[in-house]
Amino acid sequence: MKTPALHTQHARAVEHLIHEWARAIDEDRVEAIADLLTPGGRYTVRSRFNHDRQLPMAIIDCHNAAQLRDRIKSMRIANIYEPHHYRHLVSGVQIVGALPPVQAGTVLLDVRSNFTVIRTMALDGDVKIFATGQCQDQVQIDGDALNGELHFVQRRFIYDSRVVETLMVIPL
Amino acid sequence: MKTPALHTQHARAVEHLIHEWARAIDEDRVEAIADLLTPGGRYTVRSRFNHDRQLPMAIIDCHNAAQLRDRIKSMRIANIYEPHHYRHLVSGVQIVGALPPVQAGTVLLDVRSNFTVIRTMALDGDVKIFATGQCQDQVQIDGDALNGELHFVQRRFIYDSRVVETLMVIPL
Amino acid sequence: MKTPALHTQHARAVEHLIHEWARAIDEDRVEAIADLLTPGGRYTVRSRFNHDRQLPMAIIDCHNAAQLRDRIKSMRIANIYEPHHYRHLVSGVQIVGALPPVQAGTVLLDVRSNFTVIRTMALDGDVKIFATGQCQDQVQIDGDALNGELHFVQRRFIYDSRVVETLMVIPL
Repeated sequence: MKTPALHTQHARAVEHLIHEWARAIDEDRVEAIADLLTPGGRYTVRSRFNHDRQLPMAIIDCHNAAQLRDRIKSMRIANIYEPHHYRHLVSGVQIVGALPPVQAGTVLLDVRSNFTVIRTMALDGDVKIFATGQCQDQVQIDGDALNGELHFVQRRFIYDSRVVETLMVIPL
Repeated sequence: MKTPALHTQHARAVEHLIHEWARAIDEDRVEAIADLLTPGGRYTVRSRFNHDRQLPMAIIDCHNAAQLRDRIKSMRIANIYEPHHYRHLVSGVQIVGALPPVQAGTVLLDVRSNFTVIRTMALDGDVKIFATGQCQDQVQIDGDALNGELHFVQRRFIYDSRVVETLMVIPL
Repeated sequence: MKTPALHTQHARAVEHLIHEWARAIDEDRVEAIADLLTPGGRYTVRSRFNHDRQLPMAIIDCHNAAQLRDRIKSMRIANIYEPHHYRHLVSGVQIVGALPPVQAGTVLLDVRSNFTVIRTMALDGDVKIFATGQCQDQVQIDGDALNGELHFVQRRFIYDSRVVETLMVIPL
């Protein structure tokens, strides 16, 4: 196969954006991920089972960055849960195509990657694979390839299992 | 250490090829991986125990792309198994050297990477590490670095454990 | 967000160095990692719990490459343990900044990445996530970006759990 020119050109910047999201959560700077969405960007966490059948039910579905901020705020001040943290492993970032841009002067890329989130409970040190699946992202680049500003217009986490242990309080 | 020039030049394209293989399987487009092998390419899945002792026994050993197609066809229409799917995590792609090319006008690269395959059972949602190990690949590039056509001349999955749970029906 | 120029310029070489460390251990050439540290480089393995509280206690803390060589020698000839090996998965390599260089004519980069080490026991084939966490590395580049020599001035593994099963004999 040939490597798509879009991939060669933008893969490094797109990987960096995806890794920034993961690192913000893993370092407990969860608030920072909302800034990686465009103001109208959408963040969804849904099972592969539902996704494959085009069933709309999702365990998280934020229609814009403000909704995501709200959810994170609720995690900080309202939800009661056993303390734990995540570790993201991401692989296979591929730019699979371009989409019609939302704004003039921007590029909109269709991106796939695989994720695994390993959860560690703070009290007893228990470690397990909490979620694994595919991300289907739309990444917008404002400006040129080397020096542009990147945001997610869509972040869609599709997790493989229908089973989520206990609950999902920290976003993936 | 210095970064080998071969790695700097070709790593992006080689990673893309490796990720394409993984994504085809994870998205249940398994047939597509046979097109990533050259017609005479070899695909082998063998334990580290056997590999280290140069014991030839492998659980999959396709001597060409047609044999791999045959095996995938058998998975689709003949094998009886509990439905499940894979999620690949790949890391540490390194081009460790060049080999004498099979054809004039091509480059043959010796490549290493680490893989983990997480298996999710469709019925009960059970998630576990199904296999982990090293890939030892030979990747052929026809044409120039940026715009060439890439194929595997050899894909060798060496898994760490001698234990494969239940059976391996979907190729790694 | 913008991709930092330092990241764009050096990420490929830094990733290669990090992957070389992992591969040396996974291929049981553990001695080779000491050569990836500068002679005065520091290698530390510490829990996230201790790191977050700035508690100095670490399960491995080598103040220079010679101490790391000593520890590896001890693993080879003195320690008694059930045979096992590791498989590293690394993701999210990001160059987050530059530090004042230790020597003139060099660049010192501040680097983050996520790691997971999957351990396979040689006797019964048992596979489990042995450790997962973040690396906080300082990478020194002597010479130019494309052709320079890279070493770790600091490798700091911060593992998420406070629980290490049995013992850690092979370095991460």
